[in-house]
Amino acid sequence: MKLGTVRTETGTAAALIDDETVAILGYRDAADALRAAPLSALGQARTGIELGLNDVAFAPLVPNPSKIICVGLNYRDHVEEMGREVPDAPTCFAKFSGALIGATDDIEIPTPDVSAAVDWEVELTVVIGSAIRNASATEALQAIAGYTVMNDISMRDWQRRSIQFLAGKTWEHCTPLGPWMTGTDELGDGSGLNVSCEVNGVIKQSSNTDHLVFSAVDLVQDLSRVITLEPGDIIATGTPGGVGAGRDPQEFLKNGDVVTTTIQGIGSLENTCRES
Amino acid sequence: MKLGTVRTETGTAAALIDDETVAILGYRDAADALRAAPLSALGQARTGIELGLNDVAFAPLVPNPSKIICVGLNYRDHVEEMGREVPDAPTCFAKFSGALIGATDDIEIPTPDVSAAVDWEVELTVVIGSAIRNASATEALQAIAGYTVMNDISMRDWQRRSIQFLAGKTWEHCTPLGPWMTGTDELGDGSGLNVSCEVNGVIKQSSNTDHLVFSAVDLVQDLSRVITLEPGDIIATGTPGGVGAGRDPQEFLKNGDVVTTTIQGIGSLENTCRES
Repeated sequence: MKLGTVRTETGTAAALIDDETVAILGYRDAADALRAAPLSALGQARTGIELGLNDVAFAPLVPNPSKIICVGLNYRDHVEEMGREVPDAPTCFAKFSGALIGATDDIEIPTPDVSAAVDWEVELTVVIGSAIRNASATEALQAIAGYTVMNDISMRDWQRRSIQFLAGKTWEHCTPLGPWMTGTDELGDGSGLNVSCEVNGVIKQSSNTDHLVFSAVDLVQDLSRVITLEPGDIIATGTPGGVGAGRDPQEFLKNGDVVTTTIQGIGSLENTCRES
Repeated sequence: MKLGTVRTETGTAAALIDDETVAILGYRDAADALRAAPLSALGQARTGIELGLNDVAFAPLVPNPSKIICVGLNYRDHVEEMGREVPDAPTCFAKFSGALIGATDDIEIPTPDVSAAVDWEVELTVVIGSAIRNASATEALQAIAGYTVMNDISMRDWQRRSIQFLAGKTWEHCTPLGPWMTGTDELGDGSGLNVSCEVNGVIKQSSNTDHLVFSAVDLVQDLSRVITLEPGDIIATGTPGGVGAGRDPQEFLKNGDVVTTTIQGIGSLENTCRES
């Protein structure tokens, strides 16, 4: 099953997505829906309104998560290109909800005098379905509702200006999240999925979630030691090799570039960079 | 003026605090009040209900901020005791709202097998009063509603397990915030304030906000480059020297310890550590 959040005249609504149709649910957004019922039961909340897939605009899958946790250095080839060591424990940092945009929204990049190092990062992203603390591996998998795509756009100059990444990772209106989530009924533990990123039609990243250092289940279990994970919480599992900062010469995004991030079994984000 | 958030039978309410009395306002919490009106106008929202200062329990000043931004390495003596370099730019990381507790709530520390390095950190903490992006220094000061106290309790072993601090900084129910905020009408730009932390009545930290590397106004201005700061957003400005991890031998908090964090012109948090 696929659950999304679509824009409406008065705000947003949760929706179930089929191949061609979008069935609107009686909830404000995907997190609101997941708080009310498990994914498998959401069909009962159909309002009867159905729209064509091409006739809707997707909001960020969860417009205002209580937590957005990102994981760095979680594919070996990306660890190497960034000149780091493979970590013993997950490298976790946060992002604020003001960073989020929808699946086809413009990425509002700063002008080059503010940041000249805007980079792409496709990431398999966990969506939590039920509250969990101190989870076993089995409980961690049960707490995952499904998976979505994040492009964790990173201002490398701001990310590296101090030893903490936050300032380069939470730029306003720069992080597409969506277009929807695909449930664990289809994707299981999130392993074995192809992950890719294209810039202006040229493939820059191409990997598979089998190469994650810490799996989706590992991350949910680990983070649940620290704090209760709640429905709609977002965990971006990290990006594979091929980012712009790891290339020789380095490549960064500029006004007008189109970035397409795709994960097998979920779908694609396609966003144009616009200086603002 | 002093604005707080008190617990009620049905949830929480914003309140103006005088020397002896707490005047309940018609808002759910301090952030809700600041979104509705500037601090100077909040007297008009009094409900007529007044309680004795000793008869109320304070919730976290802002129970659910859209952002909690913490700043590390922002006093020279603390930078030295942590074996770091004085940074050229603010060292910013995040905390999630599930970490927050009220001014006299217990700090729910993990058992020693989970973390044996629970540390204290008193911090002058900015409360944003109005939305701001790309602020000048003057605009940054105008956007500050006031200042409160945070004890940025840190699990040093979890903080240092990777190169990002988050996991050691956002432990559930471990970060007291309050007891209230004192407005810029009394505290101006937040400079010149004595800051201290006692553990079981013994002074461990004693400094003054004049020793901040990046001032409150510097931090608001800097962070507003990245993302819009909104009413109720929280910026903890960092802690001075004297933390447990910087002592020889190191000292950490244990079950039953009482931590008192105080800032001149605001007040004190007093919290007992309880293993959970």
